[in-house]
Formats: sequence, structure tokens, C-alpha cells
Amino acid sequence: MEKLKKYVSARDEDQFYHQGAVELLVFNFLLILTILTIWLFKNHRFRFLHETGGAMLYGLVMGLIIQYATKASDVESGTVYECEKLKSGRSTLLINITNQVYEYQYRREISHHNVNGHQGNAMLQKMTFDPSIFFNILLPPIIFHAGYSLKKRHFFRNLGSILTYAFLGTAISCIIIGLIIYGFVKAMVHLGQLKEWEFHFTDCLFFGSLMSATDPVTVLAIFHELHVDTDLYTLLFGESVLNDAVAIVLTYSISIYSPKENPNTFDAAAFFQSVGNFLGIFAGSFAMGSSYAIVTALISFMLCEFPMLETGLFFLLSWSAFLSAEAAGLTGIVAVLFCGVTQAHYTYNNLSPDSKMRTKQLFEFMNFLAENVIFCYMGLALFTFQNHIFNPLFIFGAFVAVFVARACNIYPLTFLLNLGRKQKIARNFQHMMMFSGLRGAIAFALAIRDTESQPKQMMFTTALLIVLFTVWVFGGGTTPMLTWLQIRLVLASNPDKNTTKAESAWLFRIWYGFDHKYLKPILTHAGPPLTTTLPEWCNPVARLLTSPSAYGDQRKDDDTDYIINNDELTENYESSAHIPVRDRTGSTQATGKEDIHEGDLGLGGYKLQLEHTAHQPQMNSLA
Amino acid sequence: MEKLKKYVSARDEDQFYHQGAVELLVFNFLLILTILTIWLFKNHRFRFLHETGGAMLYGLVMGLIIQYATKASDVESGTVYECEKLKSGRSTLLINITNQVYEYQYRREISHHNVNGHQGNAMLQKMTFDPSIFFNILLPPIIFHAGYSLKKRHFFRNLGSILTYAFLGTAISCIIIGLIIYGFVKAMVHLGQLKEWEFHFTDCLFFGSLMSATDPVTVLAIFHELHVDTDLYTLLFGESVLNDAVAIVLTYSISIYSPKENPNTFDAAAFFQSVGNFLGIFAGSFAMGSSYAIVTALISFMLCEFPMLETGLFFLLSWSAFLSAEAAGLTGIVAVLFCGVTQAHYTYNNLSPDSKMRTKQLFEFMNFLAENVIFCYMGLALFTFQNHIFNPLFIFGAFVAVFVARACNIYPLTFLLNLGRKQKIARNFQHMMMFSGLRGAIAFALAIRDTESQPKQMMFTTALLIVLFTVWVFGGGTTPMLTWLQIRLVLASNPDKNTTKAESAWLFRIWYGFDHKYLKPILTHAGPPLTTTLPEWCNPVARLLTSPSAYGDQRKDDDTDYIINNDELTENYESSAHIPVRDRTGSTQATGKEDIHEGDLGLGGYKLQLEHTAHQPQMNSLA
Repeated sequence: MEKLKKYVSARDEDQFYHQGAVELLVFNFLLILTILTIWLFKNHRFRFLHETGGAMLYGLVMGLIIQYATKASDVESGTVYECEKLKSGRSTLLINITNQVYEYQYRREISHHNVNGHQGNAMLQKMTFDPSIFFNILLPPIIFHAGYSLKKRHFFRNLGSILTYAFLGTAISCIIIGLIIYGFVKAMVHLGQLKEWEFHFTDCLFFGSLMSATDPVTVLAIFHELHVDTDLYTLLFGESVLNDAVAIVLTYSISIYSPKENPNTFDAAAFFQSVGNFLGIFAGSFAMGSSYAIVTALISFMLCEFPMLETGLFFLLSWSAFLSAEAAGLTGIVAVLFCGVTQAHYTYNNLSPDSKMRTKQLFEFMNFLAENVIFCYMGLALFTFQNHIFNPLFIFGAFVAVFVARACNIYPLTFLLNLGRKQKIARNFQHMMMFSGLRGAIAFALAIRDTESQPKQMMFTTALLIVLFTVWVFGGGTTPMLTWLQIRLVLASNPDKNTTKAESAWLFRIWYGFDHKYLKPILTHAGPPLTTTLPEWCNPVARLLTSPSAYGDQRKDDDTDYIINNDELTENYESSAHIPVRDRTGSTQATGKEDIHEGDLGLGGYKLQLEHTAHQPQMNSLA
Repeated sequence: MEKLKKYVSARDEDQFYHQGAVELLVFNFLLILTILTIWLFKNHRFRFLHETGGAMLYGLVMGLIIQYATKASDVESGTVYECEKLKSGRSTLLINITNQVYEYQYRREISHHNVNGHQGNAMLQKMTFDPSIFFNILLPPIIFHAGYSLKKRHFFRNLGSILTYAFLGTAISCIIIGLIIYGFVKAMVHLGQLKEWEFHFTDCLFFGSLMSATDPVTVLAIFHELHVDTDLYTLLFGESVLNDAVAIVLTYSISIYSPKENPNTFDAAAFFQSVGNFLGIFAGSFAMGSSYAIVTALISFMLCEFPMLETGLFFLLSWSAFLSAEAAGLTGIVAVLFCGVTQAHYTYNNLSPDSKMRTKQLFEFMNFLAENVIFCYMGLALFTFQNHIFNPLFIFGAFVAVFVARACNIYPLTFLLNLGRKQKIARNFQHMMMFSGLRGAIAFALAIRDTESQPKQMMFTTALLIVLFTVWVFGGGTTPMLTWLQIRLVLASNPDKNTTKAESAWLFRIWYGFDHKYLKPILTHAGPPLTTTLPEWCNPVARLLTSPSAYGDQRKDDDTDYIINNDELTENYESSAHIPVRDRTGSTQATGKEDIHEGDLGLGGYKLQLEHTAHQPQMNSLA
């Protein structure tokens, strides 16, 4: 008996050691399945269910299996340990450890136990993430990769429109969703489904802001694969990436908006405080991200002999940008986004060729894994999350609100933008943009952050359903929709030279000039030496700051001002053929010769020399 | 007031969101510092403090800072929340969330609170890992990388000696440490420092087994950098890698050894059960790891078009080997080690060139990060772990025991081995092996697994001190010791042709023949087609299983039997110059031309064609 007891206690301990392994194994298994499916789809050029949709589907099935397979053993696994045993320390191992990393869920469970006496399912709890893992570990690589692979040229050419969609559009979307939802909430209160005091207008706006974050993953991957028109691609990419940042900060600002008295009335002071918060956080995060990137650029100057150290430093400093912003109460995602953009612009040029490859592949890989984990997890959450509240009216309202808001965002704004744009955004482009308003990881992540109260749980359930619906239906419908709207594909054999000139060029002409003359020489090995660009009295400082290799380029770069003002902002088919974002499989054989640089980050790294020489004739012919 | 309260609650929540960020930031900061230090050391060829030692030192300093900097705010941060608040759910956020991923510590804290009413330091708790993160996430890449980069040729040539050191040596070491410690424990009981019933002989053996795991990181990195004699390198590498596996299984077997009555007496049944456990677990883990690798090899056949998918699958399946073994109650580390070896042998050959690069660099990078995190963390643990028990007598005893046990392991076994070896292990090699018995991550990880009882805490503290001492003193002293012992360095300009012939060749000749004829053709694209190696009546099956590309090699490979039996087991300087293990920085410039393949996994992938052609003349001249 003694022995048996000892053995059992050893088994307990054993259980303890192996805990965590099972859950990770489930995720590994889902990811392996997803990869095999992607391979199958790629091989058969099947595009009606995108890999993200596939990942989500597998997650869903797995969630269903876990829920039903573990229900039988519910009573054993959920045994409530007496407080007595707590003191002995050892026997409590099991119950505590099963919750392992899932403290959040654990805490919820505790309060649940206390309040409702409800007993949860251990396996299901295990499969529920701590949102901080989501935010601190899974999201940064995705966002960083988005920023890092941003196609600067096209992005800046359409920057005016992108900013309009991202800032104004998101605000419009947030308010419209909030208003419509508020209407439905009023109706629900009228029907007695909800208490008046449970759901304020700020809650509706909160829901509106989190549902305004569109997903940059699914549609863009398809666009990229099909080589959809570059302008449309850039508009959508820029919008969905920046819009995430805006939505996150907006959600945060709304969550700390607190009118003094009646929460349903408008409080100007609190409102302006929220607006101030919004601007402050956005600017602060931007500054944080950029400064980390600049530090990386400066440090990477030194390390160029050791690719592994370079890559390590690059990775750690970029992640630190995120973590520092979070620790400082700013928004890490905004910081890491701009950190990515700045790293791509400066640091990337300082890396050794080997390092460039390593860094690029590392981030691609992390992005790939993180994305698939998130989508698997979203599928899982539908069944494993314990406190879903399905309210048909609210769900219906949310669906209506999301689509109406998207329409009120795209069509009026495009109309206004078209007044100023030389190259109008075509009707079919507008429909495609309307159609591409998928909701994805960010909306889900924002919703899962707070699932304390019943209204928040209802919001989470609804958000999850909208994500599932849009990813499957809209994601799957992208290819047919493109055909139906007759949106041209950029073919390698038919380079369309007749694309637009710089749209909002004057501001960026100034910025490019400054960047090229002063920042690039200081932060990278590229660009003209500072001795030529700074006034003469600055020469001692200039000499100190200029990299020796910059002098080598001096002779070639005499006409740089001309180049940056004209060439950087002018379309050049050579580079537009390689929309570099999200080559999710690193495929080199599948799409033919024009894709040799597919998967390249397109940041001028490898192609720097190539482009440089390519520019020479053009420059001369223009001179 | 209302507003303030709301604001405060928002702040609380805010705190919650940003929790986890600070701790991760601390680690990021330490790693960045470490990388910069490595760079500095590399640049100045400074070898007295190895990077692992540096990482540990930074961790130590950081631990000190955290301990003293946070002491002042101890009272606020450690507020004990009343049970009342637990029900409201929200206010408990802070206390719960600060422990986040560190459930284990949290539990300990709870029991501590209950038993001693002692109040911990919140920041310090935060910096204490959950051991399951250590085991499930940080160790697998290191061990996998070790297995993956194992130099097969040299390894198999010395396999007899390596197995003797790893199995017999570890057992000897474990018993000797156990006996010496038992002596000291008796003395401590006599002096009244310890109660008789607190420390059994099995506990001493437990300590012996965990202290028998030698560290493969520090010394080998230096050896590799200096190009120390290949035989010595292989012996030490093989010993320290396999010895980890043995020590882990041994520790586990001892922890479940349970004699029926008096725990100090010898119980034959329980003993044999433990031996059975040991063998069963070892064999099971081996089988688990190998079968995952075989599955990967078979799947990777299909995916060769998509490097990213290949790499992803490779990564996930290898990790799954670890997790499955853990979930099945086996030892993940043993599984992942053999998975690495098998992956390197079969799967690696199936990968596309791009994938080979990606996979190699990915594992190098993960290995690099994980190693440095572990060493930083070991430094941190000295100050942040809350329940250290420093017992000078026990510590002294442990130091004596560790050195005596190392001596009893190396010298007698080498004497016995030298009786059978054609190429004797020289005296200075023996001293070097004695000196290289560092204790590292595995010993630490095994010790931190269980710190429940006071004896276990004492063991943990002592193990940590031994790790710190050996890594700093022995790790730092490696270079002077090599000079002092006059151990020759393999110089590129002076290829030593007079190395040994196969030592335990007959067994491996059979294995190699079988592997080359049957397994390689089935599992990889390499090797002769099965149609030539299988008996004629198997032809239909053989045709089905043979990869089409294998036929291409058929003409060239007519003499393969001869090659494998002779060439594979014969030393060839070409390949021995590139000891491929642990190129921790991916440096390509630092060590000169002979290192072009440094960092290559050396698994015949890139060099397959090269070697193949190199073998042809040799083969012909022998024919």
C-alpha cells in the first residue's frame, strides 16, 4: 500500500513533468496537418479555401473532438482538491499544473468556482491561451514581417489614400458599427434580453473599434499569388496594416474613455482626453519603434562579420521595440510595425549578405508559424472557450454593422479621394476593397483580451463568428470575385507601363531628400558621404559620421538628388513585378521565372546593385 | 472620485496587459548584452571567459540588481489580497497576473504563504521560470542541434569508447557521487544540521545522477574554434551528449525507485524494476525519436518544391518527437537527440538545397538563443530563486564528490578501453577529459524540476554553484589547459594523415551495409536503387519504393558496397578538417579559408556530390 501510494505520487509528479507537452503536441499536430494541406492545395492550385481558412477549420474540428472526447472524463479530471492538501504541497501539483501557462483562464476559473460553483473541463482549459502569449509572442513577428516587407515605393506613392482609409476610414467604421450595435442593444433591452446598465454606448464603440481591424493576411496572400494589380494590392495592404494599428490604439483609447457622470451622455473633456490619448500613444509608439530600429542600424554597423550575431541582435532589438512599448504603456504592435519599416529602410542595408538571407528567412518562418498557430487557435476557441454567449440578435446586428460600416468607409472616402487623385480608383477596385474587408487575428486578439463581463463575452463570441465567416466566405471567394470584377492581373509577359505618377509627391520629395542626404549616410553604408551633403562648416562632424564605404559610391552618386526626386517616385516595372510580401511557402518553382525574387523582401537589398546600374541609363536619358 | 477609481481600474487592467513584457524585456536585454560581448570577445580573440560564462555573469548581475532594486517596493507589490476581493474578480487581476507563466513558482508561493506566512518579492517571482518552459521549449532545440550536427563518421569510429563513457561512466559517476554525498550527509546528521529521515541514500543517488550530466556546450565550442584533435573532440562530444540522455533517464529511474520498507536498505526487486525502467525508457525514447525522423523522411519526399513548408514540417515533426515522448512518459531529450541523428542521416538528404540552408540556419539560431537564455537564466537564478539553502558542508562535499567521481569515471575506464583500442587514448587526453567535466544546463534543469522539500532545495543550490564554478573556472581555463597539456591542434596546413582506422568496425560494417542497401534507398533520394540491392523476387516492391532519382546514380554506384565498407569507415582528411558542430556565430571570415564549410552540418548534404567525386579515384585505386 505504501509502495502503491509512493508510486502514485511519483506518477502524479510524472504527470506534472509531462504537462504542457500534450497541449503543445495538439498544436504541433494541427500545424503539421495545415502544412500538408497547404502543400496539397498548392500542388493542385486549389484556391477556394485559403490555408488560413484551412488552419481554422482544423482547429475547429480539433476543438470539437477535444470537447466531446474529454467530456466523459470530466468528473475525474475536474476533481476539486481540498484545502487540506494545499498545505502538503505535493498533491496539489496536478490541479495547479494543468493550468500551467493559462493563468488567465485559471483565474477566471477560480472566480467562476467561487461565484457559480461551476466545474470546468480541464482539457478545454488547457487549450485556452493566455492572451499575453498571443500579444507578446505570436503577434509581433506577424506585424514586424508586415512592416518589414512593406513595398516602400508603392506605399509612399499611395500614402495619402492609405492614410485616409486607415485613419478616417477606421474612425468612420468604428462609429458606424458602434451606432448600429447601439440600436440593436436598445432593441435587445426592449426585448428583455439585456439589462440597460450592462451595455453602454462606450461598449458599443469599443466593439466598433475592435471590429474595425481588417486582416492583412488572407486576401493579400491570394492577391500576391495571383499578381493582382499593384495599386490595388498596395492600397489594401497599406490600409489593412495601418488600420490594425489605428484600431488597436482606438480600442485602447475607448476602453479608458470615462465620462464623469452618466456613461451614456457625451463628455467633451473625456472625449478630448481620449483623442489626446490616441494621438499620444500613436506618436509614442511610432517614436519607440523607430528609435529601436535606429539603434539597431547603428549597432549593426559593427557586427557585420558575424551573421548569426547580426541576426540575433536584429531579432532581439526588434522584439524589444515591441516589449518596451508595451512596458511603457504604449502599443507594441504600432511600435513593431514602424520598427519593421525603419529596419527595412536602414538596418537591412547594413547587414551582410548572409545575414540578409538569414534574417529574411527567419522572419518569414516565424510569420508563417505564428499565423498558422493563430488561425488554428481561432478555430479551436469556438469550442474550447468556456464562456461563449451566443445572442442571435446581437450577432445579426454585428454582421449588418460590419458590412454597412465597410461600405460607409470605402465608397464615400474613395469618392473624396478620387476628386484629388490623378489616377482614379476604379469602380471594380472599390467593390474589391469592399469585399476584402476580412476580420482576422487582431479583431480576435482585441476581443479575447477582456472576457470578464457578460457583454464582453458576447462581443468575443460575435467577433469570433465574424472572423470565421469572413475568412471562409470572403477569403474563399477572393479568386471568383476577382474574375467577376474583371480586375486585371499583372502578367510578366505584358508589363503595364501606364501606371500612375507620384500622387502625393511633394511632401515625400522633401522627406526623401532629407533621408537620402542625411539619414542614410549616418545610419547605413549606402548613400552619398555626409561630407558632400552637409554644409562645409560641418565637415569634421560629417567625416566622423560617414562610413568609409560611402566614399566609394561618391563618384557614381553625383546625381543622386535627381535620382531620388524622380526615380524613387516613378514606377519602374522591373521592381513592380515582384510584389514581395508574404511568400508564405517560399515557393521558387511553382510560379515561374518572374518569381525569382518572390519572397524577397523587396527592400533593395539584393537588388541594390542591380537597380543602381539599371537607373543609370534612365537617369542619363532624362538628364 | 468615481472617475479616479475607474481610471485606476483601467490602469490595473493596463498593467495586466503589459505584464510579461517587462520580464521578457529583461531577458532580451541580457541577450543583447551577451551578443555584444560575444562580438567584442570574438573581435579581440579573447578566450578566457566563454560566451556562456558571459551570459551567466550578466544574468548574475541582473539578478543582483533586481533583488536590491525591487526590495524597496516589496511591501506595496506584495500586498496580500483579501479573500473578499477574490470574488469580485477584477481586483485580483494584479496579484494573479504578476505570476503569469510562472504557475509553479506561484504554487510554491501559495504553499509558502500557508506554511510560513512568508511574503515573497513579486519581481523576483516573475523572473523565475516554470521548469516546463525550460524542458519543453528551451532544451529541445539545443539537444536536437547536438544530435543533428553529430559527426557520424568520427562518432561511429569511437562508438565503443563513447558508449562506455556514457553508460558505464555515468553510472560510476552517479554511484560515487551518491556514496560520497551519503558520507557527508551522515556527517551533517551527526553535527545536527540535518534530520536522519530527511535525506535517504536514494536522495544521494538522485543528486549523483543529476550531477553526472556533463555539459556539451562550453568546452566543445572552444574545442571547435581551436580545431582541437578530432578524436579527443569526438570522444568528449559523444560522451557529453549521450551522457545527458543517460543522466536524465537515470535521474528519472532513481526518482521512481521505491524500496518497500526501510528506504535505506537495498531492495533487489525495486532495484531491478529501476533498471528495467531505465532500459525501457531509454529504448522507448530511442524508438520514438527515430520513428518521427523516419516519418519526416518519408513526408519530406513529397514537399521538396516548397522550402518553407519543408522547413516547417521538419521543425514541427522534430519537436513533436520530443513532445510525444514526454506525453508518453518517456524522455523527450533522448527522443529528440536520436531524432536529430536520424533526421541528419535520412531526412536531410531529401531536403531541397534551399531547405537545407534554412533548416540548418534555423536550428543554429534557435540553439544559439536557447543556450544563451539558459545560461543567463542560470546566472539570474542565483539571486532570484527564493528558497536557496546554502549548506557549506554539503556544498564542499558535492564539489569533492563531483571531482572524485569524474576521476573514477575517466581514468579507470580509459585504462580498460586502452586495453582494447588500437589507437590508445593518450595521457594528456585523459587529463583534458577529466578537466572538461563541466556541469551545465541539464544538471541545472534536473535540479530545478523538484525544489519542493528542503533537501531538494539544498541540492538545487549546490548544483547551481557547481555549474557556475565549472563553467567559469573550467570553461575559462580550457585554452590554457590545452596549451599546458600540449594537445596538438589540427592545422589546415598540416593535415595529419596518420589517424586511426575503424575501431569497432565489424558491427557497424554490417549496419552500414544494411543502411546503405535498404534504408537509404527507401527513405532518401540517395543510395543505390532497391532493385539492385534486393533479391530478384522482390523487384515489384523494390520498384515501388525506389525514388526515380536513385536510378540516375546507379551507374556510378556499382561499387558502393566496397565504398561503404571501406571508405565510410576510413578517415579522409578532407572531411575531418571541418568539425561541423556548434558554429555559434556563423562566422565565415574569422577563421580563414579552411572554414568555408564551418557551420555546415557536415551531414553529407552539400558535400554529397563533392565527396562522391572525391571517392571515385580512391575507389579505383583500391580496386
